[in-house]
Amino acid sequence: MIIMSDYILGRNPVLEALKSGRQVHRILVAKGSGKGSVVEIISRARNARVPVQEVERNALDKMTGGQNHQGVVALVPAMEYVQVEDILEAARKKGEPPFVLVLDEIEDPHNLGAILRTADAAGVHGVIIPKRRAVGLTGTVAKASAGAVAYIPVARVVNLARTLEMLKKEGLWVVGADTDGEVIWHCKGLSGALACVIGGEGRGISRLIREKCDYIVRIPMKGHVNSLNASVAAAVLCYEILRQQEKVKM
Amino acid sequence: MIIMSDYILGRNPVLEALKSGRQVHRILVAKGSGKGSVVEIISRARNARVPVQEVERNALDKMTGGQNHQGVVALVPAMEYVQVEDILEAARKKGEPPFVLVLDEIEDPHNLGAILRTADAAGVHGVIIPKRRAVGLTGTVAKASAGAVAYIPVARVVNLARTLEMLKKEGLWVVGADTDGEVIWHCKGLSGALACVIGGEGRGISRLIREKCDYIVRIPMKGHVNSLNASVAAAVLCYEILRQQEKVKM
Repeated sequence: MIIMSDYILGRNPVLEALKSGRQVHRILVAKGSGKGSVVEIISRARNARVPVQEVERNALDKMTGGQNHQGVVALVPAMEYVQVEDILEAARKKGEPPFVLVLDEIEDPHNLGAILRTADAAGVHGVIIPKRRAVGLTGTVAKASAGAVAYIPVARVVNLARTLEMLKKEGLWVVGADTDGEVIWHCKGLSGALACVIGGEGRGISRLIREKCDYIVRIPMKGHVNSLNASVAAAVLCYEILRQQEKVKM
Repeated sequence: MIIMSDYILGRNPVLEALKSGRQVHRILVAKGSGKGSVVEIISRARNARVPVQEVERNALDKMTGGQNHQGVVALVPAMEYVQVEDILEAARKKGEPPFVLVLDEIEDPHNLGAILRTADAAGVHGVIIPKRRAVGLTGTVAKASAGAVAYIPVARVVNLARTLEMLKKEGLWVVGADTDGEVIWHCKGLSGALACVIGGEGRGISRLIREKCDYIVRIPMKGHVNSLNASVAAAVLCYEILRQQEKVKM
């Protein structure tokens, strides 16, 4: 299952890839950009015995299709998705109740990247995305994730509804977030084994997936705009779950 | 104090501008894009007696410098910033304790737009930004805010530290958010009159501003990436404040 483009671009993402110990074939640096964080990248690459090659800036432009590479590109083995079981297993190994984020048709790579960054920060064990009508792990996603893509396991499934059924059988509560949910987002019960479902941009959670949710929490909108950005909704819900989990531990 | 570019671009932002009752001089629609939400835009414009003009798509491209206008541009009077006092007055009129968001050097227009959208949703009364080393209310910000810029008052100040002093004198607690704050983000005391300070991308809150904060709350990072996106940090803190304020009311 090789889907990710085989380069990482941008200073922070490349630095994070090196820090994470991820395999890197080679690092390309544009001529004249050996300053600031690039110095750290080159030094880390040398320590990890990763070859560093100086190239013309426009070669990087061409290679990345005009994306903002900041003069640094890392060539990496194409990234693999994990299985849903791997995510549950990772939680078990940590001795924590599984905390899974399920994304229903997120199409914007910046949103997916932002969500992966937040998921890493909030201690989510893994993210599940559908194969169709959704963005996968592209180079843009990796960059927008500020490198989190190297750490947070992502599973891509054919049938999201069936996956939710499977998670329920594994003992997870499935909680969706929407602007019209029946209970307030800081309701009790957001601790223990949880799968937290976030809807796609604009449309929210699709009907079929909504029916699989044990309940829907409402993130209130006090103003005039009628929806939250998907990555903001994910952040509000993930940190509320983290808050409640910490309360349980205390 | 006229700073905002005098057009709004994109379907949702233009629709929100019309809905908000904001003054619109004229709406430009690219030939062949009279479908979907554009139909609603045209109908609302007619009701509000705003002239609608059909133009060539590349005329809009030129005008907006190649930004994604989705075939719709609204010409509006340049937007004015409010005064800090106006924000406090707005809270008073609503009979609510002031809830102000202070942004310390946010440079990315997408981040500022996302924060304005979240601020509107979380019931923030107004946002304060500094004049220097920060992005102002540009067309890109308006678009990224999903139209929230039409509703949420923004004050732009020369000296942010002095403004925080003034807010303290007005009885507001000044709370900063950072990854190394001394108290956890869901600590008690995030209700009542509050000014909530969010740091710029990458650097966090600057030293001078940090010294003016009554305390710094810590949004924990459980993973490997070492900072949250500024708009995510703002969302987590704003909704925690909303949660505590609702608890006080109950």
